Parts: sequence; C-alpha cells; structure tokens
Amino acid sequence: MEMPIVADVLVHRSIQITFIQYHHMVDHSPETVADPVLGDAILQRTSEAGSFDLDETWHRGPSLLSAQSSKGLARHLNQFFALRVCIRPPPRVHFSLCSPFRSLQIRFPFTLKRMILTLEWTSEGVRFIDQTKLPLEETYVIATSYSQVADVIVTMVVRGAPAIGVSAAFGISLGAQKTDAATTEEFAPEFAHICAVLAGTRPTAVNLFWAIDRMKALFAKLQANGASLAEVQKALLADALAMYDEDIAACKAMGAYGAELMPDEGGVLTHCNAGALATCGYGTALGVIRGAVERGKQIHVFADETRPFLQGARLTAWELMADGIPTTVLCDNMAASLMRQGRIQAVVVGADRIAANGDVANKIGTYSVAILAKEHGIPFYVAAPWSTIDRATATGDQIPIEERSPTEVTHHGGKQLTPHGVGICNPAFDVTPAKYVTAIITERGILRAPYSETLQAMELVAR
Amino acid sequence: MEMPIVADVLVHRSIQITFIQYHHMVDHSPETVADPVLGDAILQRTSEAGSFDLDETWHRGPSLLSAQSSKGLARHLNQFFALRVCIRPPPRVHFSLCSPFRSLQIRFPFTLKRMILTLEWTSEGVRFIDQTKLPLEETYVIATSYSQVADVIVTMVVRGAPAIGVSAAFGISLGAQKTDAATTEEFAPEFAHICAVLAGTRPTAVNLFWAIDRMKALFAKLQANGASLAEVQKALLADALAMYDEDIAACKAMGAYGAELMPDEGGVLTHCNAGALATCGYGTALGVIRGAVERGKQIHVFADETRPFLQGARLTAWELMADGIPTTVLCDNMAASLMRQGRIQAVVVGADRIAANGDVANKIGTYSVAILAKEHGIPFYVAAPWSTIDRATATGDQIPIEERSPTEVTHHGGKQLTPHGVGICNPAFDVTPAKYVTAIITERGILRAPYSETLQAMELVAR
Repeated sequence: MEMPIVADVLVHRSIQITFIQYHHMVDHSPETVADPVLGDAILQRTSEAGSFDLDETWHRGPSLLSAQSSKGLARHLNQFFALRVCIRPPPRVHFSLCSPFRSLQIRFPFTLKRMILTLEWTSEGVRFIDQTKLPLEETYVIATSYSQVADVIVTMVVRGAPAIGVSAAFGISLGAQKTDAATTEEFAPEFAHICAVLAGTRPTAVNLFWAIDRMKALFAKLQANGASLAEVQKALLADALAMYDEDIAACKAMGAYGAELMPDEGGVLTHCNAGALATCGYGTALGVIRGAVERGKQIHVFADETRPFLQGARLTAWELMADGIPTTVLCDNMAASLMRQGRIQAVVVGADRIAANGDVANKIGTYSVAILAKEHGIPFYVAAPWSTIDRATATGDQIPIEERSPTEVTHHGGKQLTPHGVGICNPAFDVTPAKYVTAIITERGILRAPYSETLQAMELVAR
Repeated sequence: MEMPIVADVLVHRSIQITFIQYHHMVDHSPETVADPVLGDAILQRTSEAGSFDLDETWHRGPSLLSAQSSKGLARHLNQFFALRVCIRPPPRVHFSLCSPFRSLQIRFPFTLKRMILTLEWTSEGVRFIDQTKLPLEETYVIATSYSQVADVIVTMVVRGAPAIGVSAAFGISLGAQKTDAATTEEFAPEFAHICAVLAGTRPTAVNLFWAIDRMKALFAKLQANGASLAEVQKALLADALAMYDEDIAACKAMGAYGAELMPDEGGVLTHCNAGALATCGYGTALGVIRGAVERGKQIHVFADETRPFLQGARLTAWELMADGIPTTVLCDNMAASLMRQGRIQAVVVGADRIAANGDVANKIGTYSVAILAKEHGIPFYVAAPWSTIDRATATGDQIPIEERSPTEVTHHGGKQLTPHGVGICNPAFDVTPAKYVTAIITERGILRAPYSETLQAMELVAR
C-alpha cells in the first residue's frame, strides 16, 4: 500500500529523509498512540519555536515522499508512519506534513525527538537495531529463531543488562512459536534447552537469568495447570511483552526518582551506555539524565568513550544527540582531569548486577570512575531496575566477570592496533564495592547505604 | 658496496629477515662499538642457550643475504651490519653468521635484542622512526630542514619529552648547517627564528624549551666570543650530539636508581610510552623497568593502551616485546580492576614537566592512574631526566596543557567512531599533584616529598 506524504521541508545539504514504520507497543498498550500529533514519544515541540534561522546552507523545497506499508493500514490502527529526519547538525527541522490516513496538519517548527527502538517483537521475529554498526550506520537485524537471538546477544548487536533480559524472553517466546512439538509436554525438554542456550550467552548481567527464570516459572505453572501448547505460546509472548513494557516503565520511574539527584545545572559523567539502547527504551542512567532534562535541569553530559567497545563514544553520544541533550565524549582516561577542573557535578551509571551488599558489577571502568568520584567528592549514582539486583549473590566477589576476545582490544575496524603476540586483558566488567556508591536509583525508589539493609527493606515493602 | 653474509637460520614461516645498518652514536662515542659480537646493544646471549625446540613449523635452510652499505666500510668502522630478525612469536632464533668484513663467527642460540633508534643524526638530516606507523609498520623519515623537524614534532612522528628536546636541538643544528648566511652575525636573526619555530611546536614538555635554551645560550656565548659560522655550526651539532648521549646516559642512570624500587617479582603498570621511543634510547619509566629486568627482577609489564594516540598499545608494547619483557596491554579503564586483584605491585610513568613543588604533568590519564594507585596502596613512581624539572614553574596549575585535534578521538585509521557533531575533549596531558607521587626517579638519584625541598637540595648538590 502506497501512502504519499507531502512534506515541505527546510533541508540541510546533508539531510537524509526516510520514512520508517513505528510499531508502538500497541499490541499490548494501545493507549500509547492516543496523541494525534504522531505521538509524544516521536515528536516533541520545541520551546524555541520560530527561533530557527534560515541561512544559505539550507534549501527550501517541497518533496514528495512515499512509504510502503508492510500491512494494510485499516488493520493496523496501532501502526503509523512518522517522518524520521536524520540531521547533521542538530535535529531541528521546520516542515508541514499531510498524511492521507490521518487528518494531520502539523505546521510549526519542532525538535524531532527520535524514538529509539532497541528491540521489538514483530510478526517476523525479534527486530534489533544493530549496535555494532552505530553510530554511522543505522541498520536492523531480525532474529527469526531463539538461536539467532542468542547470537545477537553474544555478538553484542544488542547489549545492556535490561535489554538482554527482554531479548532472552523474546528469544524463548520465539522458540515456543517455532517449535515442531505438538503438545506442551513434548515442548518441555525443548523449552529447557532453549533456556539453557540463552542463559549461556553472557555471564555477568543478572537480568538475563532473571528473565529466563521468570519465563521458566511461568512455563512450569502453565504446564502444571495443563495448558495447551497454544496457550503456552500466547502466555510466554504476553509475558515477554509485559517485561518490555515494564522495562520502559521502570526506566521512566528511575528517571523521575533520579532526576532530583541531578544538579540543576552542570556536568554529569556517565560510563558505557545505560541508555535507551541498553533497555527497551528511555534508559537507566540516561533515563535519569532524561528525567532531569525533562524537568528543566540544564545538564551537559560527559560520556566516557568506554574502551574497547566504545559504547559511550558510539551509543551514548548517538542517542543523546538524537534527543538534543548536550554531550561531550572523552577518553576514559580524561575523566579525572575534568573532575579536578570542577566540570563534573555528578556521575550516573547503570549496572549489570548488584549484589545483596550493594556491590555493583558494571562495564569495565566503572570502578575506576567510582574511585575518581570519591577522590573529588562527587556523588556516584547507580541506576538499575530491580531485576538487576541479585540478592542471592552476597557480595561482588561472587559475580562472574566475562573475559571477552582480545581482538576487541587489539583491532578496530579490521585494523590491528597492537604488536603481534602481545598479551591482552579484556574483562568486560568490574565490581565497584558498595562503599563507593552514593545511592542506587531503582524504579521502586532511591536506596542508600547500608545497602544490605535498605535492599532487603525495599524488597519486603514491594511484596 | 655489497657484503654477503651467510646465515644458517631456523626460520619460522612468518619470519622476515632484513639487514639494517646501525649508526651507533660513534661519531661522538666510538668506544660503544668495542664489543666484537655485534654489540651488546643489539645482540644479547640468552640464558636459555640450547633450550630452543625445533618443531615442524620451523624450517632449516641456508640463506644468502646481502646488504648495501651507504658508505665505504673502511671509512666507517663506526658502522656495522646487524642481522635484524622480525619474529612472530618471540624473538628467539638460532643462526650462524659469517661476515667478510669482520672475522665474526657466531654459532650459538641467542635472544635478539633490537636497538631502537628513535632518532639519529645522519649526514642527510635527522632520521626518525615514524611512531605514527608503529607497531605494524617500521618506517623512517628523514627531516632535512629545521621546519621538517618541527613538522615531525607537531605530527607526533617523534614524541616523548626527552626525545622532542633532542629533536629540537638537532633541528636547530640542521638549520645552522643549511643556512645561506655567510657569517655568525648574519645567521643570528635566522637562528632566533629557527628557535621560535621549534618552540612553537608543542607547549607542555619542558625539555623542548630546555634544549632550545641550551642551544641559545651556547650560540650567545659563541657569538660573544666572535666564533665563525663554521665554528658555530660545529659547536651546535656537537652540543646536540652531546644532549643525545646525555639523554641515553641519564636513562641508564634512572634505570640503575629506579631498579631498586621495582618489586623483585610482580606486575608493574605503566601509562603512555616513556620508553626508548620517548627518549634517545633505553627510556625513562621503561628504563627503570629495563634496569630492574637487567638486574634479574621478574617484571611483568601492564601497559595502559593510552587513548587516544595509543602510545601504550602501540609503542610500549612494541619496544618491550622487542626486548622480550613480558607485556600485557589493557584499556585505560581496566587498571583499577587489576589493582584490586593484586596484580600490580608498582606504577612507573614518565613526565613532560615537573613543577618546583613536585606536581607532574604527563600524558592524559596519568592523574587517574595516580589516584587509583593511592586508593590501592600501590607506589606511584615518576621517572624523568633533570631536564624535565621546571623549577621556574611553581605548581602544576601553571603548566600549559595542550588540547589536540578532536579527530584523534573521533577517528581511528581513517574511520569515524563517534556520531557527527558530538562535542569532544582531547587534552593531551594532565597534572598529577605531588601528593600522589611516591618518588621521582632522576639520573641524579631518587627524590621523595617534600619535593620543593628535595628538588632544590639536589639542584644545589649538582652545582
């Protein structure tokens, strides 16, 4: 089905305009498309309406753009087309848009806020933005089997503790949909195998095991209740989709709680990417920053580049720029110097696993940042959903730390950086002892030391 | 002149054998070629003689190799040919070698120790190993004018505080040799201009200004004494060559003093490259490590990769591997984790400028390492020649810090890492306050806090 949309666009020379289709989580929460103006999540009015300066590097011209829907529109009121504008520099564009399928007339300057779809369930399989290709290539891969989902986790096409938890749940659901088994009983050993394969992808982030355990518990309950295979398939998918929604909701709650801890104005350092790309959307640490910015705080983000995988330089920078949040990338070894200069007022990072005593496993380098923050008297915050807290692990010393391939350090873009045969360290994570953590921000609220007590107390309250 | 050398070599499949010519600083110190067995600096007998295992991946076969001398041999007893073997993996090769120009018969297994010629004065100009191409390409550039020497410093073909000091002295000497002036008086304004150009190359390392000031003082003295231009040219070159020798001698002295501070056995962390490649040879921080290893200490070096220019991953790893010193490269953000695991017993780094109070300006990230060392109770040593100490600068706050191009951070190997338009930090240096420095190792001895007093005392003793 062809749908012409006429857009009168002020186009920068390097502008690229494409149409993409946004599935909007609407299979399970249709109210999120209630906004007639393409949805808040996608378009946001700028407070600087009309302040845009037209200069000679910009050209005005009407363009006839079209997009192909993969499905009939009438059947998919839950889907719509959004004009996505990839702009260098910042995302500010003035256009008018007519869509024949909705009586929309948008005719004001606005800041385009991109909705980053880290992963999503589609009828073809699980669709992931390929994070190994960002920021210069925005490509997507569709995993059509649970083993492809496992590959996508291992190769870090998707990464970030909350995101890989939901990815695993989607993978299990996909395995259930694609089984050749005829009955729940016949599927049971295959289900166990699928769970084992997904659990073997990465060792450190506890959300992976949390999500798998939740699916296992659901399956066990369904099996005990004599559910049919069709009922099992439906229930597993519903629960995976629920986890997806819960993850975004948790991020937004962390953002709301954490915003108050952020400075009204100043620099906030983050390490790795604990953003929309590490979750199903909005982010944990970057969710806190987004929450602060949405509440009017003037935050300048300093993003550690985060060697060797460069999650900060590539992913954090990319997603914050898409939101128009001022961001400066620095090499990991520069943070101390900026702190000494008084340019950092707070640090906020995510977590891959938080032990019962409050020790935090997170991306390699986090421990270093925590020590530097302490030395400079800067608060060090950890933002993570409750599913990251592993009260079964007493302290950080018991958290398994993944050692990844030396080639992540020795090579970049196929080019070798180091001499042949030199020894290489590449632990993917480190453990920050609880004593360095000023507060842990969760969707249930903010925790402070002593964490063994406050974590337990909040757990009891939640029950 | 063609000189065949027959070598019976056990050759690994990937071995590359080339002959290179070693100028051995002999114009000014001929005694260094006294060793008949190609010189200790190049070949060193292994303690594991005969322990080499021949296996099927190695092939035995005689090869006829030849090399061309650029000059007649009789006139250049100070030059000789050495068999240089680039080997993957470690540099251990068994061969016999016959040279018609010396009655050499070497017929034992030995470990090849490469002599790294960071820079050298040649009849054509100043020859530099191109440090931007290491470790995978070993290429050399010859600067034939003072402005080319300046370019080589700016583009970091040569880097490291002591090396750029001597480079500037060579550049001034080259300028004097190439002048069109007929008299010393006529040359004087050109001399001032040459000094200004070289002083404008990089701001932080004080050795640059130290070397230029030394040449200026010499010139002023010669001019006052009515020296002829030929005498000036000769004296400037002699002083530059003396600086070269003094630099290597200072490194060896630092190695001897610093060795005692190194653990008898264990891990030593270093940052950036304060090695042979940062000096005229042997190195400052790596000189201390070499001194310890030569005295039988079992040191495993951990080399921070040192973003963005990767001096650790590229240069430190390359030169330590050439010496057969066990080396592991880590990303800058991994050091804290290794310290917590008890794998680092000491830290030793170089310096670009040491203020009168003992504050140390060095490669960006040094300050971070110093804080981490303090937090883990690990000694943090700085090794630097006396020419790095700038008693005219009261504290580190007054040391100018060079901000280099963002592209060093955003790009690698021509490939962009970061999203378009993101802000970038790229200070090349930071300042480590004296309170973090356990000791400063110089060629005059080891200094400890309070540095303002001990630096002054040692200065007085030296006078």
